[in-house]
Amino acid sequence: MGRVVAVDIGATNLRVAVFENDKLISHSRTQTPRAGPQDLINAIAHLIRGLAGGEDFDSIGVASIGPLDLKSGVVLWAPNLGYGNVSLRDSLGREFRRPVYLTNDALAGAWAEKVLGSGKDVDDLAYVTMSTGLGVGAVVDGNLVVGRRGNAHELGHAVVNFESSLRCGCGGLGHWEAYVGGRNIPRTAQHVASLWKGDRTRAYELAAQGSLSPELLYSMARQGDEFAKYVVSYINRVHAAGMSTLVTAYDPEVIFVGGSIFLYNEDLIKPELVEYMKEYVGVFGVPRIERCTFGDDQVLYGAAATAINPPRAIAKYAYRP
Amino acid sequence: MGRVVAVDIGATNLRVAVFENDKLISHSRTQTPRAGPQDLINAIAHLIRGLAGGEDFDSIGVASIGPLDLKSGVVLWAPNLGYGNVSLRDSLGREFRRPVYLTNDALAGAWAEKVLGSGKDVDDLAYVTMSTGLGVGAVVDGNLVVGRRGNAHELGHAVVNFESSLRCGCGGLGHWEAYVGGRNIPRTAQHVASLWKGDRTRAYELAAQGSLSPELLYSMARQGDEFAKYVVSYINRVHAAGMSTLVTAYDPEVIFVGGSIFLYNEDLIKPELVEYMKEYVGVFGVPRIERCTFGDDQVLYGAAATAINPPRAIAKYAYRP
Repeated sequence: MGRVVAVDIGATNLRVAVFENDKLISHSRTQTPRAGPQDLINAIAHLIRGLAGGEDFDSIGVASIGPLDLKSGVVLWAPNLGYGNVSLRDSLGREFRRPVYLTNDALAGAWAEKVLGSGKDVDDLAYVTMSTGLGVGAVVDGNLVVGRRGNAHELGHAVVNFESSLRCGCGGLGHWEAYVGGRNIPRTAQHVASLWKGDRTRAYELAAQGSLSPELLYSMARQGDEFAKYVVSYINRVHAAGMSTLVTAYDPEVIFVGGSIFLYNEDLIKPELVEYMKEYVGVFGVPRIERCTFGDDQVLYGAAATAINPPRAIAKYAYRP
Repeated sequence: MGRVVAVDIGATNLRVAVFENDKLISHSRTQTPRAGPQDLINAIAHLIRGLAGGEDFDSIGVASIGPLDLKSGVVLWAPNLGYGNVSLRDSLGREFRRPVYLTNDALAGAWAEKVLGSGKDVDDLAYVTMSTGLGVGAVVDGNLVVGRRGNAHELGHAVVNFESSLRCGCGGLGHWEAYVGGRNIPRTAQHVASLWKGDRTRAYELAAQGSLSPELLYSMARQGDEFAKYVVSYINRVHAAGMSTLVTAYDPEVIFVGGSIFLYNEDLIKPELVEYMKEYVGVFGVPRIERCTFGDDQVLYGAAATAINPPRAIAKYAYRP
């Protein structure tokens, strides 16, 4: 395999890269267009032409925020963009007359580990991204777990508390992401504040107003704010429950963790997460928990990985020129 | 494929059957020995010789209560038998000089649907058994989801409430099975009784003493006992949360449900379960929920299915004479 184009459609950034012999050789980015589907498709095409215009490449791997309809190659719903029904796969395929492999961003993050990362020799691994949302991808028995609509990995929407009245962006109750997806952390901190009996610290005051952002939360916890430290622990407990459920669903040898919240706060998250997981996971045991190989570029590498070595369930629905 | 032997090792019954051209042609059963591993192996060998002794057969499929270590073919831990470390696969293989395919009972239940049941034409399906424990098996992208130790389906141990102090038989906190596995229903009913403000019905009195068995619970609910009806709803809510998590993990087109608790109380479980699932599952939607094809014989058919059409991840570790 020579050269492939990788496209990472995030809630904030749209990134395109060219990979040659498994190495990233050039890349560019822009803000993800919010006006509508056609603008998004145009922006991607523009970046690809800019990077790889006159050059030859074999195929395109696209990793998108989801959920997707894999069979039709459509992004159904992109909660952070405000639109859906984006016919990505076929639009790009017709434009560039190359095979196009479309996958979800979290699935791509897992596949990045299997094809290009530290998970090369592992048949069972998972990827968890702690970011605006909460994403999971899994490789089981060497296969990327994809499912009929491309959503058999949406464990960020696992119910971590069936008695909860917290509603997730997707509409469901008590989901892992509803508690601890980045965009929901201010609401969770507000909930914790409503039960807090301790000192009314600066973090408490912000939380009570619903304005304790993830950035503020972790920086205040690092500075020793008692309420912020408590919220960080509460969040770690939710992550531990979600990741224990993940262990029971996929039995991974290693869970790679990424996403900006984890990548910048690993010291405040990982040790406690592992301790809490021991309480939840029972006889199944805590697998290795590792920082993902490609950091902020995990999904971009994943998009490349789907083009370099297409997972069977993705290849089945690829665009073929 | 001509003739295979199927072995179903349950907590109560040990069952053996001979299948010819995908049909069950003879079977026998005994109580599952509780004295230790060697007695179990002897009892299985005895039943196989009785049924298929002089006759020819091609292979043996074994479905066991778990968890298992797939690679070594060992049942690690059988909570309801009081022993573990049973070297099943190789003992039976050496005895009968035939290929032996070992799998977990809930995995087998899922594979029964894919190979022999109503799920033949479905690539993504799950099986849930509501019995003494809570078992899950899944087929995703046409593959049985097995995992490195054979446990990538132990979603009965998903955390349905991270704030719970209910401990599961496996040691973990807040698991689906800890709430609503049959053996835990008396404890859950007792917990619900401790919060109950309504009339002290007959079911309430039993529950308060920790003696409301699943059998009593469902029969009293059917007779109109208000407390029993409330507990049944509470349990349905937990099942709905667990099955919604299942949807996010495996994206099934249909979930087949079995196990004695469901098979005898489908009328009290299914309609409410589906309603509650709508609350939990969000944008992913409720898949078809169907009674499993083979009822009480689901796992026995599953054991046969693993011998008739061995799942790749099971075949890899089969005993080969």
